Amino acid sequence: MTDLFTSRIKNLKKILGEKELNSIIILNDANIFYLTGFHGINSGSILLITDDSIYLLVNFIYLEKAENSIKNKGIKVVLYSKDKFKKLNEILEGYRFNSVAVEWENISFKNGYKLKELLSGQGKKINDAGGLVKELRSVKDKEEIKKIKDSCSITDNTFKSILKLRPDDIERLSEVELAFYLEELLIKGNSSGKSFDIITAYDKGTSMPHYVPQKRYINNGIVLMDFGCRFGNYCSDMTRTIFTRNNKKCNEFKKIYDIVLKAQLKAIERCREGISSGELDRVARKFISSKGYGENFGHGLGHGVGLEVHEEPVINKGVKTILKENMVITIEPGIYIKNFGGVRIEDMVIVKKNKCEVLYKSRKDFFIMGL
Amino acid sequence: MTDLFTSRIKNLKKILGEKELNSIIILNDANIFYLTGFHGINSGSILLITDDSIYLLVNFIYLEKAENSIKNKGIKVVLYSKDKFKKLNEILEGYRFNSVAVEWENISFKNGYKLKELLSGQGKKINDAGGLVKELRSVKDKEEIKKIKDSCSITDNTFKSILKLRPDDIERLSEVELAFYLEELLIKGNSSGKSFDIITAYDKGTSMPHYVPQKRYINNGIVLMDFGCRFGNYCSDMTRTIFTRNNKKCNEFKKIYDIVLKAQLKAIERCREGISSGELDRVARKFISSKGYGENFGHGLGHGVGLEVHEEPVINKGVKTILKENMVITIEPGIYIKNFGGVRIEDMVIVKKNKCEVLYKSRKDFFIMGL
Repeated sequence: MTDLFTSRIKNLKKILGEKELNSIIILNDANIFYLTGFHGINSGSILLITDDSIYLLVNFIYLEKAENSIKNKGIKVVLYSKDKFKKLNEILEGYRFNSVAVEWENISFKNGYKLKELLSGQGKKINDAGGLVKELRSVKDKEEIKKIKDSCSITDNTFKSILKLRPDDIERLSEVELAFYLEELLIKGNSSGKSFDIITAYDKGTSMPHYVPQKRYINNGIVLMDFGCRFGNYCSDMTRTIFTRNNKKCNEFKKIYDIVLKAQLKAIERCREGISSGELDRVARKFISSKGYGENFGHGLGHGVGLEVHEEPVINKGVKTILKENMVITIEPGIYIKNFGGVRIEDMVIVKKNKCEVLYKSRKDFFIMGL
Repeated sequence: MTDLFTSRIKNLKKILGEKELNSIIILNDANIFYLTGFHGINSGSILLITDDSIYLLVNFIYLEKAENSIKNKGIKVVLYSKDKFKKLNEILEGYRFNSVAVEWENISFKNGYKLKELLSGQGKKINDAGGLVKELRSVKDKEEIKKIKDSCSITDNTFKSILKLRPDDIERLSEVELAFYLEELLIKGNSSGKSFDIITAYDKGTSMPHYVPQKRYINNGIVLMDFGCRFGNYCSDMTRTIFTRNNKKCNEFKKIYDIVLKAQLKAIERCREGISSGELDRVARKFISSKGYGENFGHGLGHGVGLEVHEEPVINKGVKTILKENMVITIEPGIYIKNFGGVRIEDMVIVKKNKCEVLYKSRKDFFIMGL
């Protein structure tokens, strides 16, 4: 593993060189893990990479963990107590170079202002590092793809278990209990847990894309499940919408279900290296609009998945990012009708040269339990 | 409930008036919930309160939910599609007042910069709203205290169930499985789920305050559990350290356990309205230092708990905040010894006039399972 982290830092340094930047301040925990192997959660840690050294600033809570987990022997772990920016400033004072790139998107305006004042005080110019490391992370290497595939396989098997239930089994559960049951299956499947707060929505709840499960019992109707897990720190993300029984509403739903499914398949068909995010989004959006539901598909088509469940690239209207080989993204169109319900179908795929590889094998055709 | 949210906004407006601010831009989801009843999670929503109107800007994903959940009829829900800051700017252009307060701590430097440019463009002065709403939230009202007590009671009962286990029961579990078992108990206890990623650490893992549970089986030793739930959107937070069997290491541990417990009891004894955060922290820290473990208690004594599991006030060295009646905080000293293990004991308390009320009833004396 050492070589992996070392080579990622080497890649980053190469890009910094091309941009004539001689140092970078990294503030996002997933970015720090990607480059060092130290995994914090809202840890407040700082990674400083200069031309000749690498410093990881952590507080007491993370000190031992950081020391144990960094994979690159060249990294100096530095303990800060109260003021991490002061500590960082002190380290930088030892350097002659006069510019620093900062991840301005990963620091609050309040703290960023403070850091800027400090660094300006020693006459250093500050550049916006932008999403440099996030961009690197958007194309996955072999080890990452292996972990993502394992993560997806656990999630896929979890859904397969749900498909085996009888209507009576699921109708004994509230939305909260179904979410918990999914989580149990994900953990038993050998993941280290869910990758985000699971969405389980019943009936009208399905019309809200970010619905929060309630203690409402599922009773003869639509069930939307948006869930995923972490395996080896890598996330999976999947959505399926199924029907517990063949009722009247279910027939009305089949109409929008089939539109969403066709839109999703069309986007999967077109997804490959070289297409832009916006263009891929348009494939699904155009089809849904042509059926009269354009206004009901109010979110983007998808997003990257990796160490974070939402990461680069964003797949949405007008986004110019060109998809590259080995990017891993979701394709998840939806139609949401207020006070009625909604459908979303989400797969994860790996972008390839002339196609994409869908990472779930479980069925996604219109499905009524117990039929 | 309508009156509750209306009166909270009224309180905020009174303070704005005193500070001669005629509008505020609120960017933290918990702050927005506190003032409106709309509960988003990383929703990116914006609440704008002006002298005569209240606007809640949400994206498509949250539109229906926002419309359904706002409790105050006076709030206008506004849908934004791509650029929320542009939308906000347009609304503000309709106002003649020339200053706006912004929650600079709740926006990234990158977005904050953009917002600042926009607002400066229409000649409006920008003030830092600081932690105005967070400060309001730090003192809990009756309804909030009721929910927090219910949340704590579920967490307390969960720990009581753990206390009933035999060593064999817990030694069949890995750290990950124990965390999941705690979560199961929290959900069965009628909460809406865990309030943060549960920490369950075995043996040497206990020396890292923010340890992440692994698939390591618990086997005759120390077990630290840091867990809590949400009930009615309010969090609880509790830590207990117990021992599965009476082994040799356990005796060495009793020494530091008793120091941590005594430090915690001393802090609880002193906790009341009027004491400063720093002074309360010092009560525990001084005692732990007097026993030679000052260096091993590297984090603050506690933090506020409410809609967020970590909120105002921070209880740490040198913090000048004066505790007020009906603040709800944790008191959680710890001693962590590298490559050996650690102890933390955490209770939640309500600050009262001449004392504090501890919200957990379950035992916290030195406990060996099955003895």
